[in-house]
Amino acid sequence: MNRLVDTTLCAFLDELASGSPAPGGGSVAALSGALGAALTSMVCHLTIHKPGYESVQNELPILIDRANNLRKEFTVLIDEDTTAYNRVVSALKLPKETEEEKATRREALQKAFIGAAEVPLHTARLCADLLKIADEVAHKGNKNSITDAAVAALMAQAGLEAAILNVRINLTSIKDAEYVERVSAEIIDLQQMGVEQSKAIYDHVSSTF
Amino acid sequence: MNRLVDTTLCAFLDELASGSPAPGGGSVAALSGALGAALTSMVCHLTIHKPGYESVQNELPILIDRANNLRKEFTVLIDEDTTAYNRVVSALKLPKETEEEKATRREALQKAFIGAAEVPLHTARLCADLLKIADEVAHKGNKNSITDAAVAALMAQAGLEAAILNVRINLTSIKDAEYVERVSAEIIDLQQMGVEQSKAIYDHVSSTF
Repeated sequence: MNRLVDTTLCAFLDELASGSPAPGGGSVAALSGALGAALTSMVCHLTIHKPGYESVQNELPILIDRANNLRKEFTVLIDEDTTAYNRVVSALKLPKETEEEKATRREALQKAFIGAAEVPLHTARLCADLLKIADEVAHKGNKNSITDAAVAALMAQAGLEAAILNVRINLTSIKDAEYVERVSAEIIDLQQMGVEQSKAIYDHVSSTF
Repeated sequence: MNRLVDTTLCAFLDELASGSPAPGGGSVAALSGALGAALTSMVCHLTIHKPGYESVQNELPILIDRANNLRKEFTVLIDEDTTAYNRVVSALKLPKETEEEKATRREALQKAFIGAAEVPLHTARLCADLLKIADEVAHKGNKNSITDAAVAALMAQAGLEAAILNVRINLTSIKDAEYVERVSAEIIDLQQMGVEQSKAIYDHVSSTF
């Protein structure tokens, strides 16, 4: 199967806009994270060997590595979200005539919904990680590219919020109360951290010009 | 020249992450808008001919048209932002030995900075338009896709905030006080409208599940 990230931007947008429900908001959340991660790398690259930034030169390759690793993970999640959605659709189509079929279908659906929650949960966690890197880059990176660090944070935060909505909607179909409780608590923490971190980055960048 | 939207997502992300300052945050702002516009269209498509949505069937083709037109404009702005940035770089490289050269360079730079402010200003206006459509779609569209309408709003709002940062940073280099004052006032309005509208959409969607 072709990966979504191997299609052109134009073709991806066309596919997104079409009447097919996947790719949808979950894949966009992961792409938003990937865009933020890429911008974070860019600001680091634009700080390497620049006068005035001698004290952070040793940290830049580490920040670039972290941002590039996140970007790789995000690009995988773009496809995984679509795959997870399609698994829910397949489970919904399972036969439900006999009691045995009903039980099999119920189990397959629960597994598929948990899968469909796990992917955006992973996206949300990575967006939270990205915000931490974007914060460092906004403070240490080339001041001429400081708005790019802020845009990276905006994309990470939009990705985080979008991913959390996708987790929440899937939780409404999951019957494992312990799982729902645990994940609900985690996304509340992630969301609060995201709001605070992205506001701190935005305010810092805004204060510099 | 190849358009950025004709590259693959992977290649675009690589180019973004590289040490070349363009494409940067301005192009990402426009792409964020395009992603939101595409998701808005998708939700409309998923509402066409669906039972329970009879009363909005006549409105859907109009909403789709509006969202698709915005998407087209956003995709043009992805490239335009990069072109506008490159014009600033070209102007900066103009000779500045003689008084005449200095004057020519100054004028070219001012023109280039205004161009570099106008592109994200256009992006910000379109994101504000998109939020209005996303609001309608969040209220009228298929409830099974309501998180996609919310993600559309998140991307529109991230695009709007990102675009405004890019307008503001360019305004700091523009000497035409009347222009700076007028645009500063407009972006304050756009930002306030964006915050209110995106919060209203998010709260509405959140309240449904």
